[in-house]
Amino acid sequence: MNQQTRIHAANEDLMANAIRALAMDAIQKARSGHPGAPMGLADVATVLFNRFIKLDPSADKWPDRDRFVLSAGHGSMLLYAVNHLLGYDDMDMDQLRHFRQLGYRTAGHPEYGHAKGIETTTGPLGQGIATAVGMALAERMHNARFGDELVDHRTWVIAGDGCLMEGISHEAIDLAGHLRLGRLILFWDDNGITIDGSTDVSTSMDQQKRFEAAGWHVQSIDGHDKEAIAAAIKAAQADDRPSMIACRTVIGFGAPNKQGTAATHGAPLGDEEIAAAREALGWTWPPFEVPQEVYDSWHAIAARGRTAREAWEARLAANPRRDAFTASISAPDTAALGRAIADYKARLSADAPKVATRKASEMALEVVNATLPNTVGGSADLTGSNNTRTKGMVDVTRDDFSGNYIRYGVREHGMAAAMNGIALHGGFVPYGGTFLVFADYARPAIRLSALMGVPVTYVLTHDSIGLGEDGPTHQPVETIASLRAMPNLTVIRPADAVETAEAWEIAAASTGTPTALCLSRQGLPTVRTKHTEANMVARGAYVLRNPGGPRDVTLIATGSEVEIALNAAETLGADGIRAAVVSAPCFELFAAQPKDYRREVLGQPPRVGVEAAVRQGWGLMLRHRDAFIGMTGFGASVRVKDLYEHFGITAQAVAQAARAVMEQGDFA
Amino acid sequence: MNQQTRIHAANEDLMANAIRALAMDAIQKARSGHPGAPMGLADVATVLFNRFIKLDPSADKWPDRDRFVLSAGHGSMLLYAVNHLLGYDDMDMDQLRHFRQLGYRTAGHPEYGHAKGIETTTGPLGQGIATAVGMALAERMHNARFGDELVDHRTWVIAGDGCLMEGISHEAIDLAGHLRLGRLILFWDDNGITIDGSTDVSTSMDQQKRFEAAGWHVQSIDGHDKEAIAAAIKAAQADDRPSMIACRTVIGFGAPNKQGTAATHGAPLGDEEIAAAREALGWTWPPFEVPQEVYDSWHAIAARGRTAREAWEARLAANPRRDAFTASISAPDTAALGRAIADYKARLSADAPKVATRKASEMALEVVNATLPNTVGGSADLTGSNNTRTKGMVDVTRDDFSGNYIRYGVREHGMAAAMNGIALHGGFVPYGGTFLVFADYARPAIRLSALMGVPVTYVLTHDSIGLGEDGPTHQPVETIASLRAMPNLTVIRPADAVETAEAWEIAAASTGTPTALCLSRQGLPTVRTKHTEANMVARGAYVLRNPGGPRDVTLIATGSEVEIALNAAETLGADGIRAAVVSAPCFELFAAQPKDYRREVLGQPPRVGVEAAVRQGWGLMLRHRDAFIGMTGFGASVRVKDLYEHFGITAQAVAQAARAVMEQGDFA
Repeated sequence: MNQQTRIHAANEDLMANAIRALAMDAIQKARSGHPGAPMGLADVATVLFNRFIKLDPSADKWPDRDRFVLSAGHGSMLLYAVNHLLGYDDMDMDQLRHFRQLGYRTAGHPEYGHAKGIETTTGPLGQGIATAVGMALAERMHNARFGDELVDHRTWVIAGDGCLMEGISHEAIDLAGHLRLGRLILFWDDNGITIDGSTDVSTSMDQQKRFEAAGWHVQSIDGHDKEAIAAAIKAAQADDRPSMIACRTVIGFGAPNKQGTAATHGAPLGDEEIAAAREALGWTWPPFEVPQEVYDSWHAIAARGRTAREAWEARLAANPRRDAFTASISAPDTAALGRAIADYKARLSADAPKVATRKASEMALEVVNATLPNTVGGSADLTGSNNTRTKGMVDVTRDDFSGNYIRYGVREHGMAAAMNGIALHGGFVPYGGTFLVFADYARPAIRLSALMGVPVTYVLTHDSIGLGEDGPTHQPVETIASLRAMPNLTVIRPADAVETAEAWEIAAASTGTPTALCLSRQGLPTVRTKHTEANMVARGAYVLRNPGGPRDVTLIATGSEVEIALNAAETLGADGIRAAVVSAPCFELFAAQPKDYRREVLGQPPRVGVEAAVRQGWGLMLRHRDAFIGMTGFGASVRVKDLYEHFGITAQAVAQAARAVMEQGDFA
Repeated sequence: MNQQTRIHAANEDLMANAIRALAMDAIQKARSGHPGAPMGLADVATVLFNRFIKLDPSADKWPDRDRFVLSAGHGSMLLYAVNHLLGYDDMDMDQLRHFRQLGYRTAGHPEYGHAKGIETTTGPLGQGIATAVGMALAERMHNARFGDELVDHRTWVIAGDGCLMEGISHEAIDLAGHLRLGRLILFWDDNGITIDGSTDVSTSMDQQKRFEAAGWHVQSIDGHDKEAIAAAIKAAQADDRPSMIACRTVIGFGAPNKQGTAATHGAPLGDEEIAAAREALGWTWPPFEVPQEVYDSWHAIAARGRTAREAWEARLAANPRRDAFTASISAPDTAALGRAIADYKARLSADAPKVATRKASEMALEVVNATLPNTVGGSADLTGSNNTRTKGMVDVTRDDFSGNYIRYGVREHGMAAAMNGIALHGGFVPYGGTFLVFADYARPAIRLSALMGVPVTYVLTHDSIGLGEDGPTHQPVETIASLRAMPNLTVIRPADAVETAEAWEIAAASTGTPTALCLSRQGLPTVRTKHTEANMVARGAYVLRNPGGPRDVTLIATGSEVEIALNAAETLGADGIRAAVVSAPCFELFAAQPKDYRREVLGQPPRVGVEAAVRQGWGLMLRHRDAFIGMTGFGASVRVKDLYEHFGITAQAVAQAARAVMEQGDFA
């Protein structure tokens, strides 16, 4: 231990106890929260921040900062206390005093965007680990492009027993081990306690052996021994594998009568126990008071970071590739993208190809990937089916991170969370594919994409019974509705190659909303044969076929069913019935249009909706008495054509439904 | 090797090649399917069935049969070929000739209920393993109740690389190892190939070490060496831990030019390659033809099973507890349940408790668990929050399976799949708890509950922003809509203790539909103070407050918002506005009511819907122009009362919306 380290170490007890005291006090004042984790982890956090971490609270978005992820999100007061002590200007004591209260940044679980220094939203267990894998991967990929001078940071994760029980943790650690993400260091808060009591109640997992099996470097230490913590971190840094440090801790450390029990996990300690803890810890200051010497120690970390950041800025300024670097972490060049897509659309309308929209997605991606330099593709082991790998894409491997295509494996959930991490890290615009029905496997991470507002694109192919023989387990009927139900998720189901190109323009240009593209397996004709410069998908829905004269009925369809609606309109037209056809690729974007536009598009009732899925979610498009041709139950294992006949999703059925709703009358 | 085994072994090559030939031919005829797995696994399957498995095709529901689960469900032709060869009477050659075609049992993936000998639906990867864990657990629990004489069978699983990459596999193997389910034996089809190519592309997991870390017995063998397969199975049977046998196989074994490559995974081999495979395998018979000697060998397995089954039936007949055994595997005694719930409801209406519906669920469960002898509870580590453990419940442990409460750990997905397995096994009626928002983690398994129609009950507490400070990551706003979108799932959100009792009666009596109970964290008054013998929740929705005289407006609410609607109606009543209040705990059951009843309950517009969630899914209840008071985005981390104020879900807001829709007029 050198002189400086000794000074730090002498003060580290106080630094850690400041975290404990602030956590106890804030949770008690809120009468709600989880003191166990912040108190148990205070020593680990103190050593990590004091001796290792690289960040600058005065420049919270500095690209080369270390990323710190509290996967055990219920321990949020650990993060808030640390960020307060470090001196983040939006985390003053008033925030801690108002933990979990309206109008404050100190939410029950750390919410990305609420305060500086919160790298990702955590709380749903396991997500933090899997998101951190994406961050660590993005770091290596960015490093492969811009070198150690500009990209040279680490991703630190604190995870609890719950995180390691969740299935997503398996997907994450397998992927991290496979890609040998040596910059990822995970502290396991090995306190032996879950909500239901001792972890013995529900697990016998040898976690160290498990991580070793996944190719990780593994250590086990006393999580309250600061020199052991420091030594383990140094060893982890020296190893080229991702590292797991099992930290044996006492949950609620410092609370003399409750520590080591589930009683400290999710409830305030109570005034009496807090007083006893102050006594036991030798923390003599009143609630929400921290002595200046402790602040000084924490602020020294910030000062160290500031120096590093300033040196980095000097390096960036002198770097010949500084413009490319800045571009990589900036919003996409939507003007260039718009021009490229418009040109491509003109060609498409002329060619009028008949292709599956999954294939159309690949064609559009050729344009997108050629225009935006930092897209990163991938698939959960369905590359050939999802059509996610465009020409010239190169796999990212543990030996070479300069590629732009990620083999996520059969890990939909891990892929989604990793994409969140890549997007949050910056430098890349991630998209990844699976079958639409398996969006269910990834749903908790998709929800975090939406909640955080990170622009991830989900390429969800095989989007209906139209996938055919694989049968009901693979046929989404309720999945589109379940995605449309989610706030802040743009769900697009394009009808042809033109709409698919427009959908990709929206997805790739998005900065605050994730996108789910629902794409067909089966071939579809081009229905947008008349070229328009304007992105019609951006309006959500639009009149594709205008019958001329006042409408008798409006047929509204999405995706593969637009063709069916058009055929139905022709049939009706032959009988002198004027049927408009509305293509409605995106309900969310349509809902955001002005009321007048919506009225104009939808026309007066009667209407018929057509989608090879359940009706739920069509409330915006259809009145109660309008008809809907779709699914009411699960699918079946049959050839596509037979399936559409079997379930009655045909032009004849649509035409018949149109006649029936017209006869019904009474559509005020 | 004794004499008999030698005879078997001599024929086993032919037996295995029959599987290969049938798989090749059926998939080629269908022009769709996955030959790689059936051909690679034919030797493992042959040895398993020929020398070990216990089942009787003439009594496919025999309770003491072994359970065989093909977790790698895309290899469905393996199962269909085996079941055909064994002589299941619903799997004749015509079925194989019409693989993946309309009106046949041979769906693309094995679908539970489509044919005998399909123990569970598989295809979504990893589900089979996790479901099998539930089956193996149920076997031990049933054994603990009825002894080796009546319950003494094994659960066999074949899993592929994809199954082991999925997160759910982690939850399943951790739970199985923890509970030391020694009757569970898993064959890992270690063929090194996934859809995207070599498994090296996406994983570096040491699977054997991983299973050892979870407490499993592990072996590795050549999956084409029949004696090695048999020896490994014997060793697995002798060990008291769950066993994983890594079987190194060649995917598409027998197809000389394609075997060992991803080309055999998911596409027909083609006529030329099939001819070459026939040559290589020495299989000289034409397509869909199997020589009698091979049938004889397979039928000998069935005969062995029949003998075992008859002996078992004799033991059952002589067993003093035969009636209890029969009752345990029969449908629940709904008459007794109905009486018990009715009595309990009478007491409740008199007491009018103010309790959270999660607490009311516990109170109702006290009645259910006292009435039905074979309910099995559990929670994904939220026992105290989900209120799932009633008085006198005893934990199931590896040392004692006679208990009736399962500590599932922080494993929502594994819990849901295990409950599917418990229900499919028979003998028990499982329910399990987590937070409603974390239904997302379990969604793929919930979907299989619905698709298979197994009567599992999901106890989903903390069902809205009403959970308060834990914030948006824990607050469902779209989750109820996403569950309502799913076919064949009964979603119930009760308003008080009486409705909760009725909801439990429906859930516990269900035989073909899973139930999701959405329950509040916060206390709610009893709104059903007038006792009714009838189960009103079973009607889906009903008039709770009749204003007397013609209605001016109808307020429709669910769960915790019914109280708010009642208060709004009082406010409106004070102004002379006649507002009816409809409690609508279950949209699915309401949709199934006669039209006249639905009209009577909903009344004429205008209406106001109230639910602390998104509007999607309310199409059945509300016209387009009716009002809805609920959520349009994610929640926030604040105290409950403040949250409802913040998001405008209050009696005042409802009353105001009612006035507005009334003024709007024009509700034809």
